Amino acid sequence: MSQQGVTPQSEDFARWYTDVVQKADLADYSPVRGCMIIKPYGYELWEGVKAGLDRRFKATGHQNAYFPLFIPESFLKREAEHVEGFSPELAVVTIGGGKELEEPLVVRPTSETIIGWAFQKWIQSHRDLPLLINQWANVVRWELRTRLFLRTMEFLWQEGHTAHATHEEAEAETLQMLGVYEDFAVNDAAIPVIPGRKSDQERFAGAVFSYSIEAMMRDRKALQAGTSHDLGQNFARAFDIRYTDENNELQYCWTTSWGLSTRMVGAIVMTHGDDKGLRLPPRLAPIQVVVVPIYRTAEEQGPVMDAVNRVSTALREAGLRVHVDARANLSPGFKFNDWEMRGVPLRVEIGPKDVANHTVALARRDIAGREGKQFVPQAGLVETVRALLDDIQASLLRQATEFRDQHLHEVRSYAELVEVVDDEWALAWFCGGAACEAKIKDETQATSRCFPLKQPHPGESGPCVVCGQPAREMAYFAKAY
Amino acid sequence: MSQQGVTPQSEDFARWYTDVVQKADLADYSPVRGCMIIKPYGYELWEGVKAGLDRRFKATGHQNAYFPLFIPESFLKREAEHVEGFSPELAVVTIGGGKELEEPLVVRPTSETIIGWAFQKWIQSHRDLPLLINQWANVVRWELRTRLFLRTMEFLWQEGHTAHATHEEAEAETLQMLGVYEDFAVNDAAIPVIPGRKSDQERFAGAVFSYSIEAMMRDRKALQAGTSHDLGQNFARAFDIRYTDENNELQYCWTTSWGLSTRMVGAIVMTHGDDKGLRLPPRLAPIQVVVVPIYRTAEEQGPVMDAVNRVSTALREAGLRVHVDARANLSPGFKFNDWEMRGVPLRVEIGPKDVANHTVALARRDIAGREGKQFVPQAGLVETVRALLDDIQASLLRQATEFRDQHLHEVRSYAELVEVVDDEWALAWFCGGAACEAKIKDETQATSRCFPLKQPHPGESGPCVVCGQPAREMAYFAKAY
Repeated sequence: MSQQGVTPQSEDFARWYTDVVQKADLADYSPVRGCMIIKPYGYELWEGVKAGLDRRFKATGHQNAYFPLFIPESFLKREAEHVEGFSPELAVVTIGGGKELEEPLVVRPTSETIIGWAFQKWIQSHRDLPLLINQWANVVRWELRTRLFLRTMEFLWQEGHTAHATHEEAEAETLQMLGVYEDFAVNDAAIPVIPGRKSDQERFAGAVFSYSIEAMMRDRKALQAGTSHDLGQNFARAFDIRYTDENNELQYCWTTSWGLSTRMVGAIVMTHGDDKGLRLPPRLAPIQVVVVPIYRTAEEQGPVMDAVNRVSTALREAGLRVHVDARANLSPGFKFNDWEMRGVPLRVEIGPKDVANHTVALARRDIAGREGKQFVPQAGLVETVRALLDDIQASLLRQATEFRDQHLHEVRSYAELVEVVDDEWALAWFCGGAACEAKIKDETQATSRCFPLKQPHPGESGPCVVCGQPAREMAYFAKAY
Repeated sequence: MSQQGVTPQSEDFARWYTDVVQKADLADYSPVRGCMIIKPYGYELWEGVKAGLDRRFKATGHQNAYFPLFIPESFLKREAEHVEGFSPELAVVTIGGGKELEEPLVVRPTSETIIGWAFQKWIQSHRDLPLLINQWANVVRWELRTRLFLRTMEFLWQEGHTAHATHEEAEAETLQMLGVYEDFAVNDAAIPVIPGRKSDQERFAGAVFSYSIEAMMRDRKALQAGTSHDLGQNFARAFDIRYTDENNELQYCWTTSWGLSTRMVGAIVMTHGDDKGLRLPPRLAPIQVVVVPIYRTAEEQGPVMDAVNRVSTALREAGLRVHVDARANLSPGFKFNDWEMRGVPLRVEIGPKDVANHTVALARRDIAGREGKQFVPQAGLVETVRALLDDIQASLLRQATEFRDQHLHEVRSYAELVEVVDDEWALAWFCGGAACEAKIKDETQATSRCFPLKQPHPGESGPCVVCGQPAREMAYFAKAY
């Protein structure tokens, strides 16, 4: 049973987030600093994310496989940028079976290196390409300032790793998978993400180009919700991943990697949640419909429970995820709050009057108060509920899109940028240079989020918002998680 | 493309196993000694195992959750038997984020301790019980003598952990989950396992009673394919897992744990495989039907491929897992061997004659040669194939059951036991004592596998096959993996 009431978003957003994650029973702290425990309700939400992605990966020709948790320390060192990027974040096993190890083993922070080793063995000829692999796994990056789901030492994710004969194919794969993430985020998670290219400073350690989907949270901060990397031939050269082409000549492969993690759960919480708790998009909600029986006397209980069972069975048989809250010792009002905290999209209430009238009361989680409530006939309820869930899914996406668009501002001067990024997102011409990026970061705490793939003024150019040199693209800037 | 030909089982079973696992592309060795790489075909088989178990766990009221990979070293020490059992097998992280850790972190060998910590937080009242949790995870037990799937340092598994108000309920849960494993093994994996209780010597470190399902491999060795433990109050006391009962008094909980791992993949290989490779039960086979087009000329190719596409589409639309082997540079004979190596239950061949006659040729993997082959009309093929797959599933279970029963022998004397366990399984009256068990192990290399739940002479007793003291149960003895 979750406790009721959370800190209002307007009062302290960070506190609101932690309250909701814990009171909605998504996750909890663990005795190991930096690690979290994902509770059943949170894990079921993650299972929905996994299913939505896995279906899309398989539909685009990828296969799952599994590689070792441990990576020889020497492997990390083979790609110069990669080791520099990850060294400070490593957990290292030095003792195994009671003995000091000759070569320490790193707990994988990501698997480019060990999968590179395998690809080198698996790929001989151009006929072995493209090789399209995905792994569902846990990874560890040393991190003690935990924020549940957003930043934890251990997290769950998927990491795609592919090898191709040409750079064009690798780049096409990188963008295809970015598109898969966008499609999942928009259509399943109802999060209107912006796909774009990271600046050189924000690239993945070892990539030629990194892309991400960026989402705006309810506190107007940005959250990078998934990344896709064109690795060029960097890892192919480090791990000798080569193939013989049609002319029987040895060529290095072109590889990619892309990942999305349990952070997505945090993104869902912070995109849709309100002061009553979670609001989950119906496609991912572990419980889509909660049925609450309402009665006062034992005389009322029988007919009410009959109707509850009839209605919930019909909804379940239609393939909907339904929960009946038959707890005897709790008031309907308490239950309403409880399921609102857990973000269940639709509540069905059935009381003695509904039994008499062959109706039920429906309450939408996405529209508060009387406006979100209606009384409908029990006849045809499955169709009514299906249509409402579709409408709630669309409504959450619409609300999030409107919120995002209200807080995106195209700026023309540095002063304007500084003002906007204090609390919102700025879109500005940007040369992409390290010095310009550093100046913004130092003076505003904001970072470049991405050069959006869909540029607002395609074909045009303008002066970089910092240095004034000509820039061919605009970028988003915001404070970020 | 898999290479063809494996060492015959009769020549060297261990070598046969390794050949098949590698040539059927199930798994491969890794650069980290003791760890393996699960290749896509092997991982898909594991995904089938996961789906079959997960469905059963949820149907019996369990929920998935996720707990940290790392466990504080001190946790392991709280349960005396547990730490003694696992200490020699631990991988220990001593460095994190570049610094020596104050308290080393153990990479989980199993999660009783950290889940015990969580249960202590989650359980207050009898209303919180039973608490029924499962985790899908990787675990690490230090082990350098690797056998792919059977014994690896890191392996994938599920571990169930439950807490109950009474010992009776905990014991019922332990046996229920043993039954779930048996049901999965028999009906999905076509492995006729024997459920039973382990001897005190073979108990899980920290359990009061351990149960297992035991399977006979084609070399007549035993493989423990899943275990279920009644943990009594051992972990509840070590981690202070208590609840207030109806009288508002504090009571310790009774807990259970149960696990099944990627070892099951090895069990499937060694139960059904033959000298041509794998033989997979249709319910778990990643590919249930492979369609091989047969043609010599370009003129033949068009009509053959039309029929192949029509047939494969119809089978796929019926929900079957179908693969078309359209590789141009390989002969039909090579392809037949290739898919036999990978254990695909049913092969569909379509050539010019089949096109003319509106037929296809079907070849069963479970029955070798002409006997397993038939020509059937294309009309009604979905129903024909469905019925055949059911028949193949039943046939594999029947073959494995007959094989097992041929090699189980009830023995009445120690001399007879010694002779039988050299190469088969003996069933004997057994007192369960440590000295008797040690004598058998020392002199024969066999161990007690279990006291089967279904005793052959219920209500009777007999003299222990070693010491001659009265014994109330019979146990199986065999050499084991």
